[in-house]
Amino acid sequence: MSRLVAACRRESVDRPPVWIMRQAGRFLPEYRATRARAGSFLALCRTPELAAEVTLQPVTRFGFDAAIIFSDILLPLAPMGVEFAFPDEGGPRVERALAGPADWARLAPPVDGRGTAFVAEAIALVRAKLAPEVAMIGFCGAPWTLASYLVEGGTSRDHAAVRAAMASHPDEFRALLDVLADAMAAYLRQQVAAGAGVVQVFDSWAMALSAKSYGDVVVPALVRLLRQLDDLGVPRIVYASGGHLVPALAGLPCEAVSVDWRTDLTEAAAGLAGKAVQGNLDPAVLLAPPEAVRAATRAMLDRAPANGYVANLGHGILPATPLESVAAFLDVIRGAR
Amino acid sequence: MSRLVAACRRESVDRPPVWIMRQAGRFLPEYRATRARAGSFLALCRTPELAAEVTLQPVTRFGFDAAIIFSDILLPLAPMGVEFAFPDEGGPRVERALAGPADWARLAPPVDGRGTAFVAEAIALVRAKLAPEVAMIGFCGAPWTLASYLVEGGTSRDHAAVRAAMASHPDEFRALLDVLADAMAAYLRQQVAAGAGVVQVFDSWAMALSAKSYGDVVVPALVRLLRQLDDLGVPRIVYASGGHLVPALAGLPCEAVSVDWRTDLTEAAAGLAGKAVQGNLDPAVLLAPPEAVRAATRAMLDRAPANGYVANLGHGILPATPLESVAAFLDVIRGAR
Repeated sequence: MSRLVAACRRESVDRPPVWIMRQAGRFLPEYRATRARAGSFLALCRTPELAAEVTLQPVTRFGFDAAIIFSDILLPLAPMGVEFAFPDEGGPRVERALAGPADWARLAPPVDGRGTAFVAEAIALVRAKLAPEVAMIGFCGAPWTLASYLVEGGTSRDHAAVRAAMASHPDEFRALLDVLADAMAAYLRQQVAAGAGVVQVFDSWAMALSAKSYGDVVVPALVRLLRQLDDLGVPRIVYASGGHLVPALAGLPCEAVSVDWRTDLTEAAAGLAGKAVQGNLDPAVLLAPPEAVRAATRAMLDRAPANGYVANLGHGILPATPLESVAAFLDVIRGAR
Repeated sequence: MSRLVAACRRESVDRPPVWIMRQAGRFLPEYRATRARAGSFLALCRTPELAAEVTLQPVTRFGFDAAIIFSDILLPLAPMGVEFAFPDEGGPRVERALAGPADWARLAPPVDGRGTAFVAEAIALVRAKLAPEVAMIGFCGAPWTLASYLVEGGTSRDHAAVRAAMASHPDEFRALLDVLADAMAAYLRQQVAAGAGVVQVFDSWAMALSAKSYGDVVVPALVRLLRQLDDLGVPRIVYASGGHLVPALAGLPCEAVSVDWRTDLTEAAAGLAGKAVQGNLDPAVLLAPPEAVRAATRAMLDRAPANGYVANLGHGILPATPLESVAAFLDVIRGAR
C-alpha cells in the first residue's frame, strides 16, 4: 500500500507522504519543454502520451509519493456542451458564460465517458510506469468551483456574479450543482477504473462563501458526488480553500481534507476528527530563500497530526518557484518522523 | 450623539445605525455625473468641493446614518513618494512596485499633513453640511493592505508576491508596516481634527493570511496605528476580510470590528466580546431581486447582537447594484428594533 493511501486511512507510516498540488507544471523546465512540443495547453491535456509524460516528470525528478494526472478541472465540461479556451495569460475562459437558469438548463449530462477517454488513457499509461508504492491520483473540480467558472465565464477575483446567481435563483442553482456533482462522480469513477487509487475533489473557490452558505448549498452537492464513490474503496480527498470552512467539511463522506495555508493544521485535525488532513505550506513561501522554506516547513510539521497526515502545499505551486525550494521542502519532510 | 457613535460604544439605540461601504460610488447616477465633470477619479478625490459633493450624495438620497469621506486608501502614500494611477478598468496601479527592502527603505514618512490637506478640507466641507445626528467617518488603509498594493504593484488576486516578501524579509517587512502605521495614524488624526467623528481602518486583504501570520506580523502594526488615536476619543472601526480572523482581532485597541459576509455575526460578537460588530450582508446579494435582498437582510439581523451593532455590507457595494436593492436593504433595517 502506498504511503498516501495509508495516511488517508490514518494508518501509521514511516514518514508523512508528500506530493504538491500542480506538481506537474510550469515551474519544471522539463514540463515547459513538453508543453512547447505539444503546441497548446489543451493539446497537452488531450494527448494521452504527452499528459502521461508530464504527469511522471515531477515523480521522476523529486520522488514524490504520488502522481496526479495532468489535466484541468474544466475539461470534463466539454462533453456537457461547454466551450472554453486556455489563453497563455489570464486563466481559463468559458466562451459563453452560463449566467442564469436558462443557460444552466442547457447543460447536458455526459452520456458516457467517451468525451473524457483521453484522461483515462493517460492514467493507464502513468499507472503502468509508476512504481507500485507511488499512488496515482485522479481529480475533478467541485460543483461550486465549476459553477463559478461557468457563471463568471472564467477565473473571478470576487466571485460576485456566481454569489448573486445563487442568491437570485437558489433552487435552480442547487439543481446546477447536482448536475455537476453527478457528472463529476461519473468522471472520477472512470479515472478509478483506469487506475487511479486516490481521488481529489478541488473546491478552489470555496473561500468565497460563508460557512452557512457553504453548508446549506454546496455541501449537499459535495455529499452527492462523494457518495457515488462509496463502493470504490479509494480514499477521497476534498480540497477546500478558506480558513473558516473546517466545521462545514467535518461531515463530508471523504477520508481526507486538504486545507489551505490560512488554516491551522492542529485545529483542522481536531475539527475533522476521524479524517486525515493534507497541506498546507503557503506556496508563496517557496519564493523565499531555502532557509525560510525549511523553517516554514518545520513549523508546518509541528502543527501536523501524528497520524492521518499528508504533506503538501496549501494551494497550487506557483510557476515562479525555484527548484531548490521544492528540494528544501522535501528534505525537511523526509527527515520527519 | 449619532446612532453610529452610540452603537460603536455599545450604548442602546432605537434601531441599528446603517451605512454602506463605498456608498459614494458608481452605483449612484449622481456620482457618475460628478465623476464625469471632474474628469478623472484623482481629480475628484483631490478637489475638496467635488469630494464633499459625492460624499453627501448617498446621505441625501438614502438618509444613511453616516457619511464616509470620498477618497482612496492609496492617496496618503503620494506624499511618501509613491506614484500611482487609477485606470478606468482594472483597479489602481502603483507605478513602481516596492518589491523588497531596498525599495521599502526609500518610503519617506510624511513630514506634515500638507500632502493630504485636500482630504481634511473636504471633511470640513461635509461636516458643515451634515445634520448633527449623521456621523462623519474618516478612513485609511491598514498597513498590511497598503503593503500588498506597494509590493504587488496593484490589486492582486492571490497576494503571493507580498506573502513571499514577508517570508523572505520578515524584519524589514515589519519595519515597512510600522512606517505605514505611523503615517496612517497621523493621517487619521488629521481627519479627526478636520471633523471626522469616527474612523475606519480598512484591511481589505486580511483574508490572504493565516490567523497566525496575521496575529504575529500584522496585528502589532495595527495596534501601533490604533494606539496613536487613543487620546482622540473617537470610535475606531477595523474592517478585516476573511472568515477566520476574528480571534486575531479580539485584542485590538478599537471599539468595533467590521466583518465580511463570510463571518457569522453572532459568532463574531461572541469572539469579540466587548467590541461592537459591523456588517455584513454579501454585496452580491444586492444584485438579486428585492425580495431576496429583504430575506437576506432579515437573516443578517437575526444573527446580529442586540447592542453594539452597525448594519452594513460585508464588503464595498458593487457598481452594478440597483438602487431598489439599497432601498430594500434599508427598509428592513429601519423596521428593526
